[in-house]
Amino acid sequence: MTVSLSVKNNHTCPSSKLFPNSRRIYIQGSRKDIQVPMREIFQSASEPSIYVYDTSGAWGDQGIRINPSKGLPRIREKWLNQRSCWYRSQRSAVDGFCNVVLKGKAEERITQLAFAKAGIVTEEMEFAAIRENQNRAQYIENLQLLNPLARCQLLSQHAPIAYDVQIPEFVTGEFVRQEIALGRAVIPANINHPEAEPMVIGCNFLTKINANIGNSALGSDINDEVEKLLWAIRWGADTVMDLSTGRQIHQTREWILRNSPVPIGTVPLYQALEKTNGNIQTLSWEIYRDTLIEQVEQGVDYVTIHAGILKDSLPLVKKRLTGIVSRGGSIIASWMQQHEKENFLYEHFADICQILRSYDVTVSLGDGLRPGSLYDACDPAQISELKTLGELAQIANSFDVQVIIEGPGHIPMQRVMENVEEASRYCGVAPFYTLGPLVMDCAPGFDHITSAIGASLIAWRGTAMLCYVTPKEHLGLPNKNDVRDGIVAYKIAAHAADLAKGVPGAQIRDNAMSKARFEFRWEDQFNLSFDPLRAKSMHDETLDKKSMKSADFCSMCGPKFCSMKISKTL
Amino acid sequence: MTVSLSVKNNHTCPSSKLFPNSRRIYIQGSRKDIQVPMREIFQSASEPSIYVYDTSGAWGDQGIRINPSKGLPRIREKWLNQRSCWYRSQRSAVDGFCNVVLKGKAEERITQLAFAKAGIVTEEMEFAAIRENQNRAQYIENLQLLNPLARCQLLSQHAPIAYDVQIPEFVTGEFVRQEIALGRAVIPANINHPEAEPMVIGCNFLTKINANIGNSALGSDINDEVEKLLWAIRWGADTVMDLSTGRQIHQTREWILRNSPVPIGTVPLYQALEKTNGNIQTLSWEIYRDTLIEQVEQGVDYVTIHAGILKDSLPLVKKRLTGIVSRGGSIIASWMQQHEKENFLYEHFADICQILRSYDVTVSLGDGLRPGSLYDACDPAQISELKTLGELAQIANSFDVQVIIEGPGHIPMQRVMENVEEASRYCGVAPFYTLGPLVMDCAPGFDHITSAIGASLIAWRGTAMLCYVTPKEHLGLPNKNDVRDGIVAYKIAAHAADLAKGVPGAQIRDNAMSKARFEFRWEDQFNLSFDPLRAKSMHDETLDKKSMKSADFCSMCGPKFCSMKISKTL
Repeated sequence: MTVSLSVKNNHTCPSSKLFPNSRRIYIQGSRKDIQVPMREIFQSASEPSIYVYDTSGAWGDQGIRINPSKGLPRIREKWLNQRSCWYRSQRSAVDGFCNVVLKGKAEERITQLAFAKAGIVTEEMEFAAIRENQNRAQYIENLQLLNPLARCQLLSQHAPIAYDVQIPEFVTGEFVRQEIALGRAVIPANINHPEAEPMVIGCNFLTKINANIGNSALGSDINDEVEKLLWAIRWGADTVMDLSTGRQIHQTREWILRNSPVPIGTVPLYQALEKTNGNIQTLSWEIYRDTLIEQVEQGVDYVTIHAGILKDSLPLVKKRLTGIVSRGGSIIASWMQQHEKENFLYEHFADICQILRSYDVTVSLGDGLRPGSLYDACDPAQISELKTLGELAQIANSFDVQVIIEGPGHIPMQRVMENVEEASRYCGVAPFYTLGPLVMDCAPGFDHITSAIGASLIAWRGTAMLCYVTPKEHLGLPNKNDVRDGIVAYKIAAHAADLAKGVPGAQIRDNAMSKARFEFRWEDQFNLSFDPLRAKSMHDETLDKKSMKSADFCSMCGPKFCSMKISKTL
Repeated sequence: MTVSLSVKNNHTCPSSKLFPNSRRIYIQGSRKDIQVPMREIFQSASEPSIYVYDTSGAWGDQGIRINPSKGLPRIREKWLNQRSCWYRSQRSAVDGFCNVVLKGKAEERITQLAFAKAGIVTEEMEFAAIRENQNRAQYIENLQLLNPLARCQLLSQHAPIAYDVQIPEFVTGEFVRQEIALGRAVIPANINHPEAEPMVIGCNFLTKINANIGNSALGSDINDEVEKLLWAIRWGADTVMDLSTGRQIHQTREWILRNSPVPIGTVPLYQALEKTNGNIQTLSWEIYRDTLIEQVEQGVDYVTIHAGILKDSLPLVKKRLTGIVSRGGSIIASWMQQHEKENFLYEHFADICQILRSYDVTVSLGDGLRPGSLYDACDPAQISELKTLGELAQIANSFDVQVIIEGPGHIPMQRVMENVEEASRYCGVAPFYTLGPLVMDCAPGFDHITSAIGASLIAWRGTAMLCYVTPKEHLGLPNKNDVRDGIVAYKIAAHAADLAKGVPGAQIRDNAMSKARFEFRWEDQFNLSFDPLRAKSMHDETLDKKSMKSADFCSMCGPKFCSMKISKTL
């Protein structure tokens, strides 16, 4: 079946419309085929351009039309071909997309982790390294010029950070390699997702954010999901998880993968359960394994595996206020109870790693027992699972499978640090990837805010990636607007943490904004912001005339009471 | 001139419509005329009611119609009359409102601070104490019953808090008195604002939030401002600052005061400057003094005085990226420069205290040199002013004038703690009152979020009151919707901090929400939330049928994949 996707026309709303006066540019690496994207924001007058991390892929390129039914350019194909350590086979095609499958030969060590351990800096590592440096060149240059923009808050006292955060002044491919080799960073990059632009997740890099999309039985179709993907990457999602549980799961995922410039994560258990028509009783390792292979052959870059929830932990759940709130966790728990057996994901974890290593799929160890309320935060159920995740992380590493550790959830502010400490105690340096956490339970409709507070705090303490929470959390399936609100809230949390961690150059954009503010360059203020159209429309609500774009005041204080205006006369 | 206020009809949208299934109730104190408000949220089935702090005043009462042109009931009048230590005089009437002025006799010590020092527990102290205890009775009862709702996160490790936070299990009038006597708390309650319901601000009490309203030359009139006041208190503003700089300042303030159940703060400097038609050159101590007296006679409860910015600090401002961003600070700086004289507010600070003590007006020592960007955060200009505020706080205290200290502003996360430490170092235990702080500069349109992150962090560390920031900050004058968004974001920040500080009972509402969530009591979830209509409308976007209010799933996961539903079968 071929679906006719309205997404074809999506590109008529290009990034340049959402982000005026900016363009996607490419920095060349050591070779011509390493072209690393950034977004350049132009400023007025003689103010320098500001460079920001860009996740929009070729969709953000100027003057290029991409046909979603063909998919994105396969930028990694050449690199992968050079490695020639694969078998090639074919899978059943979806809607005319390429159906060649690469699989690592059994005797070859083909993951980024394996290369890192062997001392090899891959193209992916170099690409990801360059990407981290958007403002660092400017930062160093400014330092040399003694430009006022250079003075950042780097020398301030830092709070204790659980992981050994030592952020270099300039990120090199070799530094990325070292971090991956240590298991302190990952590059989720399935060899069957050559469309993706490599990126690195780890405490010594920019804090990344993930956006969840995916339909449920109750809403949205393939068109919606591809549109949500394109929408999410425009706003800055570093990875996207497709959590579909509704119809056409395989086909939806194919469209998402072929059009995604960012790593795609999934929870294979959902589709496995779908294959049993939702009957947990008939779920089995075999169905799961086949589903996992189906997904990684398609090109999924990382998979959440709920292998840490064990039969012995189930009694601990009884004491909770909100039981199990992880979908995967609840399915496995129910399966264990019905079968009176140990979690098959735990029992078969080595088999799983064997599959993942053949495609370089990163494992995200799911926290099936994450607390769903402050009441359940940091309880024995949560901590017991964390210990198991630590064991599993070691096993995965022994297979050269890259590992990230999932974390909560609902945690009051004063216990956020404790969660990072426990994660690093049990799981070593593996990157921590948390959902929020929400620091309170009683503000549904605003959980992008309750969780942005926890997210900024936990990222400051070394959490490498933040899974976003939209305002619809606990209430319903997010629409496009919710996705945007969730992503912007998380861009804020991540940036606040990067500033707090002292990422060199992170403050350049803030300084540029402040300078534009003091100089009443309104258009520059809009363009430098996370959401230019929103900033502009808010400004224009009161002062909408064109002349007011050069006014040396705004409607907050009016012309006579503008502190900046008065301050400039001093 | 009598304005015809559309606000008269505002009461046709009563609180009960915004907050369904709840009602304002009163707890009686030691006497019949001490009636302390709370809001009771009913739950379905046999679940207990949840009590929350209520700031809506008689406007929130059921079945009562208040005529704004008459103003609110004067609940403190009887208490004040009993004290009989006043002169009574008359001021020119505004629009038919009562124009009697009370003024403390020179030989009498009539402020809450004076009473506290003398060991007297006033009615205001008892009222404020009872108000703090909304969930504590339930908390203690639950502890005794070993009810699961009782288990809160109190025993967790707390981060270091700069102030000596020791929150009692039950707040008594005597405890409030002690805290005020120490200068660690204030009750802003002008003897000419008998309509206000007393409330206490201090690190050992619930974190309070302030909402700024007020017109500028460019927008809004009296109707708008009174509507904004009523709107702000419905959503939970603990105090409101009227920062009007436009037309009809005196009249606008009168309408606000007579209809406000919460303390009203102002910056008298704005009106003083307005009297010179915005000519800073002709501003003088005499004009200022007369304006101050005019305002405190009307009943303003606290005033921001920018007395800490000194002539010597001006050279420090030159090194900044964003100069002076406080309106008051910039006016004073410009005045000092033009006159080549020291700040007249500093020079006449004793005279100011003499005025304030006669009406029991709390002084909020303004931070005219607060940083307006991360770049300027914690710079010598900011810190030099803080030192001066410490001197002034001591002077005020010697006059029995209650004092709070204003703080920034724009501060990166990793320096928030440092700001609290410096404030307590220089200004002792006086309550700290900060604007945010915003933890980054480049997200205009979302500064309610960037600042809620900083606000929750700084309140956790002992800041007593948070001045809200709306999404319109840096862009324009907030409208009603912005006011709501700003207040809810700050209710979130304050509640997150109260949870983190371990305020007994603070978690009861969260626990009730979590329980309702796990039991699929949708209506209870909406009603327990900070904004029930928003939560409900978000839920109904996908599942709007009445039957879905009892559905044991939502559109996020659909019926088959609902973790809570599965979890309940375990």
